Amino acid sequence: MKSTTPWHLAERAHAMNPSAIREILKVTERPGILNFAGGLPSPETFPVDAMRAACATVLAEGSAVARPSLQYASSEGLPELRAWIAAELAKQGATVSPDQVLITTGSQQGLDLIAKVLIDKGSRLLVESPTYLGALQAFTPMQPAVESIESDSGGVSASALREALQKGERPRFIYLLPNFQNPTGRTMDEARRQAVIAVCREHGLPIVEDNPYGELWFDQPPPKPLLARWPEGVVYLGSFSKILAPGLRLGYIVAPPALYPKLLQAKQAADLHTPGFNQRVVAEVIKDGFLDRHVPTIRARYHAQRDAILAALARELGPTGAEWTQPVGGMFVWVRLPDGLNAQALLPKAVDAGMAFVPGAPFYAGAPDVRTLRLSFVTSTPAQIDQGMAALGQVVRAAL
Amino acid sequence: MKSTTPWHLAERAHAMNPSAIREILKVTERPGILNFAGGLPSPETFPVDAMRAACATVLAEGSAVARPSLQYASSEGLPELRAWIAAELAKQGATVSPDQVLITTGSQQGLDLIAKVLIDKGSRLLVESPTYLGALQAFTPMQPAVESIESDSGGVSASALREALQKGERPRFIYLLPNFQNPTGRTMDEARRQAVIAVCREHGLPIVEDNPYGELWFDQPPPKPLLARWPEGVVYLGSFSKILAPGLRLGYIVAPPALYPKLLQAKQAADLHTPGFNQRVVAEVIKDGFLDRHVPTIRARYHAQRDAILAALARELGPTGAEWTQPVGGMFVWVRLPDGLNAQALLPKAVDAGMAFVPGAPFYAGAPDVRTLRLSFVTSTPAQIDQGMAALGQVVRAAL
Repeated sequence: MKSTTPWHLAERAHAMNPSAIREILKVTERPGILNFAGGLPSPETFPVDAMRAACATVLAEGSAVARPSLQYASSEGLPELRAWIAAELAKQGATVSPDQVLITTGSQQGLDLIAKVLIDKGSRLLVESPTYLGALQAFTPMQPAVESIESDSGGVSASALREALQKGERPRFIYLLPNFQNPTGRTMDEARRQAVIAVCREHGLPIVEDNPYGELWFDQPPPKPLLARWPEGVVYLGSFSKILAPGLRLGYIVAPPALYPKLLQAKQAADLHTPGFNQRVVAEVIKDGFLDRHVPTIRARYHAQRDAILAALARELGPTGAEWTQPVGGMFVWVRLPDGLNAQALLPKAVDAGMAFVPGAPFYAGAPDVRTLRLSFVTSTPAQIDQGMAALGQVVRAAL
Repeated sequence: MKSTTPWHLAERAHAMNPSAIREILKVTERPGILNFAGGLPSPETFPVDAMRAACATVLAEGSAVARPSLQYASSEGLPELRAWIAAELAKQGATVSPDQVLITTGSQQGLDLIAKVLIDKGSRLLVESPTYLGALQAFTPMQPAVESIESDSGGVSASALREALQKGERPRFIYLLPNFQNPTGRTMDEARRQAVIAVCREHGLPIVEDNPYGELWFDQPPPKPLLARWPEGVVYLGSFSKILAPGLRLGYIVAPPALYPKLLQAKQAADLHTPGFNQRVVAEVIKDGFLDRHVPTIRARYHAQRDAILAALARELGPTGAEWTQPVGGMFVWVRLPDGLNAQALLPKAVDAGMAFVPGAPFYAGAPDVRTLRLSFVTSTPAQIDQGMAALGQVVRAAL
């Protein structure tokens, strides 16, 4: 008798695991729950009218002998979109050519392509502590040895980074989210950026800079991107998910010439090209400065929600000894519960009390801080935020 | 001094190469050329009106608090689309659950996920001779040892396959395109399917069945898919690119339960999910039997073009000793030039004469037959086909 399954899995497939977050989120999918667990942008910010007009325009283009937006297209991406991205980065101080821009199927795909092109089995990689879980998932199939670098409220520590680089093999890269990081909401300030870039340049440590949230600042734009500071040593990832809509799956990589051709070949092998229809629709939506009018409305909305959650946290958790970040942009607050509490153990009680968060442990590549949790504040109204934080406060106080 | 580039490429990146076809197609991009070199479906078949209506419907759905088609979505894909695919396969004799369907960003992504989950460095893989170049590109980054199995006008030879399986390690899978294969246009008949399935079952050799063209039959549907004959041993790939439009990048994998969870994890890591907007638009277009009305119009169009190219080839190349396939569906004819000719060497002359084809050599994983070339007949009118084949005939005759 032959075995009932003839399939022999690749070694890397054994390293893949179901998302811990996905399993956790199942607990939170109770109807009527106040949900701070997700990582979703607010659907109120999706520009439905602009998209409807753009779809109609794009579908009226071309002719029966040539309809580029519905046909196979180039792997690099739509030229007008690549030019727009290069121009936007120039405004932020980064001088890049449109030829360095590769349109990806969401910025998650950018992480996958980078993993394929830069990671061998056992390659040393550095990440912040904690870091974006989706990046760890994208890197895992290529079987790297991921190492967490000590980080604080300003992001990765330059001195801890220098120390890590003084021993062991040279890491293939460090993965950083300088702006309103997922999961912590923290931002690298100007001094930290300079210090980290100096260490990376000194040690020849390339940087993967992930910037999905950078446009979502509240009072002032963040300091200029790492890409602007070391163009040949930084691969930069951007996304339209948080400023237009995630369901379009439209992101991009900006890569130095030393890397671009390999990322392009990996892209071609991965899905030939990003949906041309989506690219053309987005190009149509954003022309004529649409985002200059639209993004400020998102900032104002999220700003008010951030104010609401910080006030509610002060009220509800202030007296408990818990700590939390003070995000100046983005979607997340990171809470550290009082000593002795465990966020994962607390979650079922919070759900019983009517609210949900994500425990912080899965976001650590190294030893987790089990007292941490992530709150997304952008899909709840200020009233829901008050109610949700009151429920959290009650659960925390009861556990003390 | 540090090196000017700090990047250290993964070993697999060195194995990646620019697409040979892409380089060749540059030769053919002369304005006014009669182009038989592409692999594009006819834009005349793109259902623009149905898409316009579907986009408007989808963008009117939901509310400010929930717009699922524009939000992050499940990695498995849209439930209604998964159910539709399972129901369509049931009509072809394959009993699968919607839970076995994974929506992918084009079927090229299906190949990428399969490569990640099933190929270790050096893993033995079997392919037809010749085979789809895009599959070779998707497999290459995982560094397999690809082996060509002797094939004839009915596809892969069952006896050659048995022989290959009697020596060496068990291959991870064989990659097959049973219907109107790219590049040859050939189809595995009922007897061949039975013979190949028998060998695969006997040896526990899994099959990756790629079926992008199966709906494009001319006189009668092809024999039932391999998936229907060995459900636990076949991973099946399908696509909406040839029956709706490639620019949507919408394909799917149907996988046995032994494999599905790992493909899903790879999908999640690769791009989180296929664009939800595209999925919802396609689900809206195809509901109520749209494809039952639309696909016959594509078949009729391509049928007439197939008739035109076969008649023109008989007229122009018949006397030269060239041979060609007689496709009963799909988009391609495969030509074998007379002895002593080399298709790649002939291409610049053909372009000078006003027509372009793709030389066959890049489609071989093993030693190429340099006399072969591929002609796509679906983006030219019968009059253009007559003119293009006359030019080809003239060039071939001049080279004899």
